[in-house]
Amino acid sequence: MNALLLIAHGSRRAESNDEIRDLTARIRCDAARFALVEHAFLEMAEPSISATGSALVAAGATDITVLPYFLAAGNHIHTDIPAEISALQTRHPAARFTLAAHLGAATGMAELIRAHLDDA
Amino acid sequence: MNALLLIAHGSRRAESNDEIRDLTARIRCDAARFALVEHAFLEMAEPSISATGSALVAAGATDITVLPYFLAAGNHIHTDIPAEISALQTRHPAARFTLAAHLGAATGMAELIRAHLDDA
Repeated sequence: MNALLLIAHGSRRAESNDEIRDLTARIRCDAARFALVEHAFLEMAEPSISATGSALVAAGATDITVLPYFLAAGNHIHTDIPAEISALQTRHPAARFTLAAHLGAATGMAELIRAHLDDA
Repeated sequence: MNALLLIAHGSRRAESNDEIRDLTARIRCDAARFALVEHAFLEMAEPSISATGSALVAAGATDITVLPYFLAAGNHIHTDIPAEISALQTRHPAARFTLAAHLGAATGMAELIRAHLDDA
């Protein structure tokens, strides 16, 4: 069973974390290739990457794509998130966790920015 | 003269900041409505918002759209960036600085994520 785990940074502001919940709900409606779509926060908010990854496995996910919802490939992308995913993989050897490129690397980013500015 | 000022968080990793430079160059090529397109970093990297905003005015920009290249509307979006832009506006009363919604609010975000995952 395919699942998507979207990882956001997390904020002290509840409204900011709510945006991630809303986005996850929108992706869940759209993304036919993922039976399960959940979000987690790297820090400052719950649920954690560890808890959400384990919950997906408990729900039957065997192939889990992990998308870092980050624009810049800083230390969170190079160090912190890979370490969390590696720990999950060790804990759940029967599942496969695949770390996708961070969202900032998306080829359509410049186009999204243009459309966003046209909307403004 | 219309200008776009893209504000990214900034990272200790040079490659991360280089991504922003590359993105700015791509937007510059695409965005016919902006005569000038520059980037700045909120923290941890140069150039600063203050220096870049003033440089745009010195280069003749009169109408400056400021795009926070951030996914989540945390304290940087609610407090730090508005304070920087307000200070620029006070310093350059003849120009007009307009703060656009942060990129995470873009209507096409769920679609960009789907396309990004299809590419992966």
